[in-house]
Amino acid sequence: MKQYIAERYRRFESGLSLDTEALRRYDDVIDLSIGDTDFTTDRRIIEAAFADAASGYTHYGDPKGDPELIEAICQAWQEDFGQAVRAEEVLITASSCMGMAQVMLGLIDPGDEVLVFSPYFSVYRQQIELAGGKAVEVATRQENGWRPQREDILAALTDRTKALIVNTPSNPTGAAYPQETLEMLAELACRHDLIAVADEIYTRYLFDGPFVPLRTLPGMAERTVTLNSFSKNFMMTGWRVGCIIAHPDLIRVFQHVGNGMTYTAPSISQRAAIRALSLREEIADIYIRQYRERVLYAADRIARIHGLSLYRPRGTFYLFPGLEGQKTDDKAFCARLLDCAHLLVTPGSAFGQAGRGHFRIAATVSMDKLIEAMDRLERVFED
Amino acid sequence: MKQYIAERYRRFESGLSLDTEALRRYDDVIDLSIGDTDFTTDRRIIEAAFADAASGYTHYGDPKGDPELIEAICQAWQEDFGQAVRAEEVLITASSCMGMAQVMLGLIDPGDEVLVFSPYFSVYRQQIELAGGKAVEVATRQENGWRPQREDILAALTDRTKALIVNTPSNPTGAAYPQETLEMLAELACRHDLIAVADEIYTRYLFDGPFVPLRTLPGMAERTVTLNSFSKNFMMTGWRVGCIIAHPDLIRVFQHVGNGMTYTAPSISQRAAIRALSLREEIADIYIRQYRERVLYAADRIARIHGLSLYRPRGTFYLFPGLEGQKTDDKAFCARLLDCAHLLVTPGSAFGQAGRGHFRIAATVSMDKLIEAMDRLERVFED
Repeated sequence: MKQYIAERYRRFESGLSLDTEALRRYDDVIDLSIGDTDFTTDRRIIEAAFADAASGYTHYGDPKGDPELIEAICQAWQEDFGQAVRAEEVLITASSCMGMAQVMLGLIDPGDEVLVFSPYFSVYRQQIELAGGKAVEVATRQENGWRPQREDILAALTDRTKALIVNTPSNPTGAAYPQETLEMLAELACRHDLIAVADEIYTRYLFDGPFVPLRTLPGMAERTVTLNSFSKNFMMTGWRVGCIIAHPDLIRVFQHVGNGMTYTAPSISQRAAIRALSLREEIADIYIRQYRERVLYAADRIARIHGLSLYRPRGTFYLFPGLEGQKTDDKAFCARLLDCAHLLVTPGSAFGQAGRGHFRIAATVSMDKLIEAMDRLERVFED
Repeated sequence: MKQYIAERYRRFESGLSLDTEALRRYDDVIDLSIGDTDFTTDRRIIEAAFADAASGYTHYGDPKGDPELIEAICQAWQEDFGQAVRAEEVLITASSCMGMAQVMLGLIDPGDEVLVFSPYFSVYRQQIELAGGKAVEVATRQENGWRPQREDILAALTDRTKALIVNTPSNPTGAAYPQETLEMLAELACRHDLIAVADEIYTRYLFDGPFVPLRTLPGMAERTVTLNSFSKNFMMTGWRVGCIIAHPDLIRVFQHVGNGMTYTAPSISQRAAIRALSLREEIADIYIRQYRERVLYAADRIARIHGLSLYRPRGTFYLFPGLEGQKTDDKAFCARLLDCAHLLVTPGSAFGQAGRGHFRIAATVSMDKLIEAMDRLERVFED
C-alpha cells in the first residue's frame, strides 16, 4: 500500500506512544514510559460531567468552546496570575496537543523556522514539519539545569525564525525556568519579533514557588500563544480538553484550523473541566503533592547510583538521568533495561539531539512500584 | 496580528459553523442550520460511560483506540454487513471529521487531486487543501437525484487524481446512491487505481433498504478507506468519537498523523461508543425513525411550495431545496429568510459550485418547530 501514502509520511519514527509490545513482553514490567497520571479523575469531576451530560450537554455546542468554561478560564487566570483575559482570547481545544497542531498550522509557512529547546517534547517537530516549517533545536545542557542560554538562541536565529516554543516546567527534563530565563526569552522575542508559544501544561507541577506564565511578562501578552490543558493538572488525560489563550485575531485562525479537524472539543469533557477548575487548589493538594514526593524520592535514589547523573527536577513528573562516563547509546540502554530489569523507560534521543545519552522516567506509578523500580535500576548498575 | 498568520489562512471563509450572531438576532429564530441531532444521547449510553469513567477509564488508553471498542466495531461490521474486519484495520478517531483530516494528510501529496461530488460537505476542501491537494468538484444535479454520473467523473480524471470521496447518504442533498452507482464508482476506482474514501456517517439514516458500505463491493476492501462516526448514528455529536477502517499499512499512517494531533480519542467517549453499538437497533428505532418522519413531512410541504424545487431525500436529516425559475443568489435568499421568517438555513453555495441556487435545511428540530418552520417558509413564497 506504500504507493498510496503521502510522501511526508513514507518514513516516520513511531515517536512517543504506548508501547504495547514492550508491555506484553514480561508480566512484571513497570511502565515508566508514558506521561499519563496513574490517578483516576477525581470523583466530583466525573459526577459533575455525568449530571451535565444527562441534562443535555451531549451536543456539539459552540465550536469556540463552552461559554461557561471560557468564562471560568478567564476568571481563574485573573485570580491565579492577576492578568485579565477576555473571552475572545480563549479557544477550547480537544487537548493541548491538538491545540499545538492548530497553532503551528495557523502560524507557520513553509520555510519558517521554530526554535525548540532540546531535549523537547518530540511531537513539536512533527507539528512544525506538517506546517512546512523547520524545527531548529537549540541545545540545553544538564549542567545549566536544562535552561536555554541567550548566546545559543542568538546563534540559532535567522531571518526565517518566526516563533519559539517555551515549555516550562519541561517535559522531559523536569526543568523549570527561573524568572531571569523567562525575562531573557521575553526580551529576545520582543527584540526579534518572534511569537512565543508557551506550552504550560505542567503549571501545577512546579515544586517551589508560584508559576509565572510567559504572557504575564511585560510586552508578552500580545506575542504569546499560551497552551494549557486539563490532562496533567487535573488528572484528566482521557478527557481530551485544553485551551489556547492568544490575541483574538490569532484565535480566529486557530478556530478555523480546528473546524476542519475536531470541530469542537468533547462537550462532556468541557463540563468536567468547569468543575475541575473550581477544585484546582484541592486537586493540587491531593494528587500533585504525591508526584512531588515521588519525583524527589526517585531523584534521591538516582543521585546515589554510580553511573548515572541527574538534574534534580523542579517540576513535572519526569526525571531525565544521564548515562555517565561512557558513550552509551540510550536506545540500547533502554532496550537492556527492559530485558534485564523489566523497566520500560523512554530513550532520551526520542526528545532530540540534546537528549542523547539520557533516558526519561515518568513517575506515574504508585510509590510502591517506584521503590521497586528504583531497586531494579540500582541493581542494573551494580552488575 | 495579520503578519503572524500563515499564508494558507490569511483569507478564509468562515465555513460551516454555529452562527451565534444570527441566532441572537431574533428571539424566535428556528435553527435549521446545524447538523446536530436535537436528541440528548440515550441515557443508557451516558450511564455506561460514567460507570466506566468512575472505574478508571479516564486515562489516555491505547492511541489506536480502546481494544474493546475496536473489537465491538469488527463484530458489528460482520453482523451488519457480513464482511470480516480485523482489529488492525480499525483506528478510533476523535470524530469522523478529525478522521478525514488524518486520511487526507496521510494520503495526499501537494498537487494530488481528490474528486468530490458537489454539492459536498465543504470541510473536505479545507482538509484536502491543507494536505496540499486540489479538490476537484464533479457536479451532480438534482434531476439525477444528485447521483454522480460516469461521464462527469471520466471528464474530471487526470493523471494526478489520487482519490475520490464518496458520501452516501449525502450531506447536504439527502441523496443515497443506488447499487448501480456504487458499482460504477467501484469500477472506476479499480480501473484508475484510485483510493475511495467513503464517508459513511449517516448509514442508519437510509430511509429504504439496507445500507451497502462501499468496501463490501468486489475489489474495494483494499482500496477503500471507510470513515464512520458515532455522532449522527447514535445521537453522540458532543462525544467526538469515530473510526477509520482501512488497510493496516494505511491505518498505521493515519495513527501517526493522529498522534501529533489529538493523540487519542476521548476515553470516556469510547466507552460510551461500546454501549452505543450494542444498542444500535434500538437507537435507530427510537430516534432515527423520527428523523425520517420529519424529513418526509418537510419534503411534502416543500413540494407544494411554488418557487421551490426538491429532490425527495432518501436518507440523512437534510433537505436541499432549489430556488426555482430565477437566478436567485442563495446567500441573499438565506439572509432574507432570516430577516423575514426568522429561519436560519445554510446557503447551498457553501457546499460547492453545484449547490448554488439551493439551501440546506437540517430537520434537527422537533416536529412542532418544523411545522412552524414550514409555515413560515410557505409564507415567504406567498408574499
